[in-house]
Amino acid sequence: MPSAAKIAKPVPEHVFPFRVYYEDTDAAGIVYYANYLKFAERARTEMLRARGFDHRQLDAEDGVAFAVRACSADYLLPARLDDALEVRTRVTHVGGATLEADQDITREDAVLTRLKVRLACINRAGRPVRIPAAILAAFRSNP
Amino acid sequence: MPSAAKIAKPVPEHVFPFRVYYEDTDAAGIVYYANYLKFAERARTEMLRARGFDHRQLDAEDGVAFAVRACSADYLLPARLDDALEVRTRVTHVGGATLEADQDITREDAVLTRLKVRLACINRAGRPVRIPAAILAAFRSNP
Amino acid sequence: MPSAAKIAKPVPEHVFPFRVYYEDTDAAGIVYYANYLKFAERARTEMLRARGFDHRQLDAEDGVAFAVRACSADYLLPARLDDALEVRTRVTHVGGATLEADQDITREDAVLTRLKVRLACINRAGRPVRIPAAILAAFRSNP
Amino acid sequence: MPSAAKIAKPVPEHVFPFRVYYEDTDAAGIVYYANYLKFAERARTEMLRARGFDHRQLDAEDGVAFAVRACSADYLLPARLDDALEVRTRVTHVGGATLEADQDITREDAVLTRLKVRLACINRAGRPVRIPAAILAAFRSNP
Repeated sequence: MPSAAKIAKPVPEHVFPFRVYYEDTDAAGIVYYANYLKFAERARTEMLRARGFDHRQLDAEDGVAFAVRACSADYLLPARLDDALEVRTRVTHVGGATLEADQDITREDAVLTRLKVRLACINRAGRPVRIPAAILAAFRSNP
Repeated sequence: MPSAAKIAKPVPEHVFPFRVYYEDTDAAGIVYYANYLKFAERARTEMLRARGFDHRQLDAEDGVAFAVRACSADYLLPARLDDALEVRTRVTHVGGATLEADQDITREDAVLTRLKVRLACINRAGRPVRIPAAILAAFRSNP
Repeated sequence: MPSAAKIAKPVPEHVFPFRVYYEDTDAAGIVYYANYLKFAERARTEMLRARGFDHRQLDAEDGVAFAVRACSADYLLPARLDDALEVRTRVTHVGGATLEADQDITREDAVLTRLKVRLACINRAGRPVRIPAAILAAFRSNP
Repeated sequence: MPSAAKIAKPVPEHVFPFRVYYEDTDAAGIVYYANYLKFAERARTEMLRARGFDHRQLDAEDGVAFAVRACSADYLLPARLDDALEVRTRVTHVGGATLEADQDITREDAVLTRLKVRLACINRAGRPVRIPAAILAAFRSNP
């Protein structure tokens, strides 16, 4: 949860709108619990793209990728077929080789699922490496 | 494939743009073959929505849903991570209880995958029923 | 985390073997992070089945289902295509309406991913209800 | 479709049993139509493995993989949560660079979905190449 200090000087939030389709739901009539992690990953990809980066370019030019090291999810309310939802992403920590974010999946004003993720920058051998300088700059300046 | 007559008076095409994310790809580095069917279903859902219908409303008001009876796919070219693609859907037949469509998944001018689907309108017991009149009208007029 | 008492008299562990297929992997060449949650859910389903319960029967006879309320995952080592893996599940807490478990996804002696899940028993309206007595008995006796 | 000659000397059928989990179903309460293609791919992988081949070894030793070129599905009856199903695979054609199979997804004696697939052997550049001799031999002898 962001501290009071963080709320006072908030990290800009990235908003990713998406729709719930049949593929996302299960026989309980609601979105299957693993699929919220898919939505969150789409949102992180679009947050990178909005700052000028994409996965193929990161691989081709820097030989790096972001791997999820840890993830936690609190499922508060279920999402349903046809729902128009958003992933609201706040980067909460940018280290030399790791990146942390809170990602809320919301329907209008309600938070349905709260996710926290920790990502590591890895090279093609899967070893942790420093985040490329251009990405660090983009996430630290927060224009 | 649409007949010459149909090409002369073409059914308007619905275009659904989408992005390829990690979840869609596999260890061969390309989109997993089953996932094109997900893209096609998203597109059919949005084509319905563009004409004023959604699955929850169809279930609540008419007690019906569309079930895929048959589907074929020709995989011509692979899609890759980060690709910006489209599903181009042409409804090729509207019967009393069935609906057929051609769905091409395209990247710029190239067709990557050609799908043909036949859908049946079913009630909550899974039995075939007539397509609600409002949907028939929407797909037969083709404004 | 199991208490010392529980370690002294350990809850029997349920072992669910499975294989990694193309559908589970992504373009990074490893298992996509959300898919470990699918493996864990399969294992919980088989753990229930091994004690005589399945989802359809729980719904039909008791009108209940288990919903995931919280889940956390630590990704330690990647799984790859063709890997033969196991989900090792230990129920760590059985409350009146909730059930907690640790689930390790392992390859031979290595833990690849550590999951913790908290499940709630819910009725068809999605409200928390007591776990059916037969299930409670099955998980508390631990023969 | 198998020719009369092939029926007279039938290709042995590979049977792959599996279970339907929540992940496979959708809000209509039945298995989502794209997921039958996942089941079929698991079965093809296990059919290869039963004859001594796996994807990683094929990539490492021969630099080849099998890509689906075409696939058709007839959905006859729905599968449901907890169903114990089988994929029954018959290789119907083995060419120099392609392989065709019929794959029925069955529940007891009922065929739920009939699939036909055409696979191409491709190299790492995605170009069609001859199927490795050991695989050809394994599928042509049919012991």
